Amino acid sequence: MRFKFPLMAIGLEVVMIVLFALFVQYETSVNTSRNPNETESAAMDVEKTMESYPFFQDVHIMVFAGFGFLMTFLWKYGFSGVGINLLIAALGLQWGTIIQGIFRSHGQKFLIEMKNMIHADFSTVTVLISFGAVLGKTSPVQMLIMTILEITVYAANEYLVFKILWASDTGESMTIHAFGAYFGLAVAGILYRSGLKEKHSNEESVYHSDLFAMIGSLFLWIFWPSFNSATADEAKKQYRAIVNTYFSLAASVVTAYACSSLLESRGKLNMVHIQNATLAGGVAVGTCADMEIPPYYAMIIGSIAGAVSVFGFKFLTPLFTTKLRIHDTCGVHNLHGLPGVIGGLAGIITVALEESDSTKTVSQAAALGSSIATALVGGLITGS
Amino acid sequence: MRFKFPLMAIGLEVVMIVLFALFVQYETSVNTSRNPNETESAAMDVEKTMESYPFFQDVHIMVFAGFGFLMTFLWKYGFSGVGINLLIAALGLQWGTIIQGIFRSHGQKFLIEMKNMIHADFSTVTVLISFGAVLGKTSPVQMLIMTILEITVYAANEYLVFKILWASDTGESMTIHAFGAYFGLAVAGILYRSGLKEKHSNEESVYHSDLFAMIGSLFLWIFWPSFNSATADEAKKQYRAIVNTYFSLAASVVTAYACSSLLESRGKLNMVHIQNATLAGGVAVGTCADMEIPPYYAMIIGSIAGAVSVFGFKFLTPLFTTKLRIHDTCGVHNLHGLPGVIGGLAGIITVALEESDSTKTVSQAAALGSSIATALVGGLITGS
Amino acid sequence: MRFKFPLMAIGLEVVMIVLFALFVQYETSVNTSRNPNETESAAMDVEKTMESYPFFQDVHIMVFAGFGFLMTFLWKYGFSGVGINLLIAALGLQWGTIIQGIFRSHGQKFLIEMKNMIHADFSTVTVLISFGAVLGKTSPVQMLIMTILEITVYAANEYLVFKILWASDTGESMTIHAFGAYFGLAVAGILYRSGLKEKHSNEESVYHSDLFAMIGSLFLWIFWPSFNSATADEAKKQYRAIVNTYFSLAASVVTAYACSSLLESRGKLNMVHIQNATLAGGVAVGTCADMEIPPYYAMIIGSIAGAVSVFGFKFLTPLFTTKLRIHDTCGVHNLHGLPGVIGGLAGIITVALEESDSTKTVSQAAALGSSIATALVGGLITGS
Repeated sequence: MRFKFPLMAIGLEVVMIVLFALFVQYETSVNTSRNPNETESAAMDVEKTMESYPFFQDVHIMVFAGFGFLMTFLWKYGFSGVGINLLIAALGLQWGTIIQGIFRSHGQKFLIEMKNMIHADFSTVTVLISFGAVLGKTSPVQMLIMTILEITVYAANEYLVFKILWASDTGESMTIHAFGAYFGLAVAGILYRSGLKEKHSNEESVYHSDLFAMIGSLFLWIFWPSFNSATADEAKKQYRAIVNTYFSLAASVVTAYACSSLLESRGKLNMVHIQNATLAGGVAVGTCADMEIPPYYAMIIGSIAGAVSVFGFKFLTPLFTTKLRIHDTCGVHNLHGLPGVIGGLAGIITVALEESDSTKTVSQAAALGSSIATALVGGLITGS
Repeated sequence: MRFKFPLMAIGLEVVMIVLFALFVQYETSVNTSRNPNETESAAMDVEKTMESYPFFQDVHIMVFAGFGFLMTFLWKYGFSGVGINLLIAALGLQWGTIIQGIFRSHGQKFLIEMKNMIHADFSTVTVLISFGAVLGKTSPVQMLIMTILEITVYAANEYLVFKILWASDTGESMTIHAFGAYFGLAVAGILYRSGLKEKHSNEESVYHSDLFAMIGSLFLWIFWPSFNSATADEAKKQYRAIVNTYFSLAASVVTAYACSSLLESRGKLNMVHIQNATLAGGVAVGTCADMEIPPYYAMIIGSIAGAVSVFGFKFLTPLFTTKLRIHDTCGVHNLHGLPGVIGGLAGIITVALEESDSTKTVSQAAALGSSIATALVGGLITGS
Repeated sequence: MRFKFPLMAIGLEVVMIVLFALFVQYETSVNTSRNPNETESAAMDVEKTMESYPFFQDVHIMVFAGFGFLMTFLWKYGFSGVGINLLIAALGLQWGTIIQGIFRSHGQKFLIEMKNMIHADFSTVTVLISFGAVLGKTSPVQMLIMTILEITVYAANEYLVFKILWASDTGESMTIHAFGAYFGLAVAGILYRSGLKEKHSNEESVYHSDLFAMIGSLFLWIFWPSFNSATADEAKKQYRAIVNTYFSLAASVVTAYACSSLLESRGKLNMVHIQNATLAGGVAVGTCADMEIPPYYAMIIGSIAGAVSVFGFKFLTPLFTTKLRIHDTCGVHNLHGLPGVIGGLAGIITVALEESDSTKTVSQAAALGSSIATALVGGLITGS
């Protein structure tokens, strides 16, 4: 048993190296040297792909520092939060590169661009969200397995949503946030039955663990405009996604603080709400961030998401634990699940109002349904 | 009383949404679809405005992580420092967008560019600086009111300085730093008389609160070159502002350490000096950072600012508390007030030496005077 | 004695200002105004040099926040780690600008570009690495002296490697990492004899000091692709350096976790390994990151480096202390020394396979030898 984790980790790394040797090649290596006429156009691609590098770095900070420190709020799990976060993300980005690349190239060799690296980082986010639901209930070995399985299901659903349904989801509210949350809840539901109740006593935050969690929370908040705009395919959409996310986030901070003070005894602010619900505006505006919506519309989405998220923490999470026997350690349902669904619904409404073609609206609805359904099924299978 | 904060916060957010619906529109929405001939030029604008996005992100880190964590150094106020910082900045950036936009468009609808977002973030900095002077003396409700009032006065003074006096202040040493510090000191002076002396016993830093404050201090230090160059209007000026700020900051670190060791018993370094005075070089070089000054001139400004700031912490702050009955919790006078004034003076001297036209010099002097005067008057009115 | 540190610091700052006045000028000041025909081309240069600014900022974060917080893992030295880090880097970047500029301009006046600022930040990294080996054994005065001496030796060796041998070392695995580690070990060896054994009892990490160290570790991890690509001179090389570093780092995380679990009692993960060995992949891929290697090759280098680094912490560091009487406080030999040598060797092998001309291979080997030799000699002299 002692050697299970190291052997599995090394085995997975060897598999990754073999898969990279088989499937991955450079933008500008054999292919360009074979045909000198293509050199010019290949060089152009490098310049263009490098334009996405600052967006990649912003997303990279969110994945490794943002999610990592957000999970340090429980004192007993502080180090395992940030440590296992790094392991999941480092393994996940390799597997995400491979599985997404194979889906898109239909099993051929493929080139690595900055966009592949952004998508690889994105794929790990689903696992990091689910990890928030099961923190303290799983071993490192289980997390290695969950990383491989969840990213595979994610890549399949993402291919369905973007390449078959042709739905819009630039900030991936549905395909990452709702997906990751419901996947994690399904796994947490299975693990609950295994009788892990006694661990709950470890769930205490202390003063400085809350400050460490604020590091994660703030870096997520700061870079969310980059997250929602990183994969937008033209400058105009990227610009709109940035502006809308900026104002949606600001609005969700104000309503989250207001609702937190409203619901807590003697009007005090609850730190868990501040760390999490302030981000709900970024999640919820994700699907329609790059659409032609006026900025005040983004602020309304953010305001609603901030409020709903606080109500979720206060009323839904305790209900989930007692009634549904699902214990959601970090409350990912309130930060990613509910706001992800709000994002999906806002996307459906926006498309229905903007586009005369109703098949577009149906695609959006199908994308939301598919994301939740594959997440629940995938999570239940993974948990078993 | 219990519902005062949540109701006021929600009310303000509703007002913001209504104002955005009335005044804010996109760079590329109705206007371009109305006139297809303008599409080309509008698309160009998007490309150009996106060039400022990395600078916006750097400033964004400073506002939300930098100032937030800098205020965690007092253990008792650690969470309220970083938490209220987020609330002020999130509300302030919405109001700043509106009030600055209305001033510049003379009450017409206006478009959001990256520069508007940078200016909106800038406007919140004034309140964050003033918050440092009154930390521990105010309630969240009072901070909401102060945010709205201070940003209004700031926008008026900024319009006067840049659009009527046509003065130079690229890093806004006068219009943000000196303004924010003196506004905060005026409010702190009023609040002192209200008899809040007993709170001072909470003013202790502990070992890890000082490390949390270093997170804020370092991120401010790292990105200050972006702060001073973010609004420069041509590449050459932006480049000069970066280089000058880089070396001015480095020089102020060395003299701040030297003076701290000189003044403390047994030559030890004082952590408050290290967290704050090392940044004085960035503040003081702000006004003339983009002018044609040789780099060693920037280093002299930084050296002086670092030293003056340490002396301020050691001798002026205690004097302010006992003699003037102004209690400056974070010592913002030493980090923003004095270095801001040094910056204003350095700007006057540089312009006087460079320009033959003496009206330019008078404009600079008028800008410094106006920034301090409006801050003091605004602060006294707000505090009452 | 009391005034030794402040007087030396102020003296050094005055020397820096004088040297800047003598040697440093702007890209676009006197030279362009003298000859109006050159204005066009000079303006082009500014645009081009500004393209490196995002890379500079990423490196800047690594130097000031990354290395600073990485050294907070020992509770007793937490503040001195991050505080002295800032002092060394602020002084070092000024001296590095001067000494590197003089070497390259052969004693003439020179212009400051973004690349100069990146190289200045790089030069301070050598001292920060060496500081990790001597943390807790030196006074601030000794660190001022070491900063000046080490950067001088570094600049000489760098000139030899890049401008005489014309070797490749884009991420400076040899010239920064191996150099800084062996320089520090040599100094630590000398200081050991001075009888500082009793200080070792301070070497304890506590739970939150490990979390602070993770801030440093993660920001280094996140931005390492920028470090290895910042000085690459064409877009294609920059792109390759980013991709290779990204995957090498990911691979080294997985093998470092596996080996840590393998070697620790009861399969637990060791926090020092997680903070340090996960970065070994970034160091080791540095020399050949921009060469035409397939990505799986980078992953093999990273996997080996992560494993070797953990073995180094477990077996070599205790051996160094007991047998060689060299006490390496932060274990820089395992994070920078060994992976730097692996990087140098990987560079030799890659060049030998790629280039038909064997003089290139000899140059690479000479560069590795020179970096280690000058480091050891320089360190022994500095320590005495």
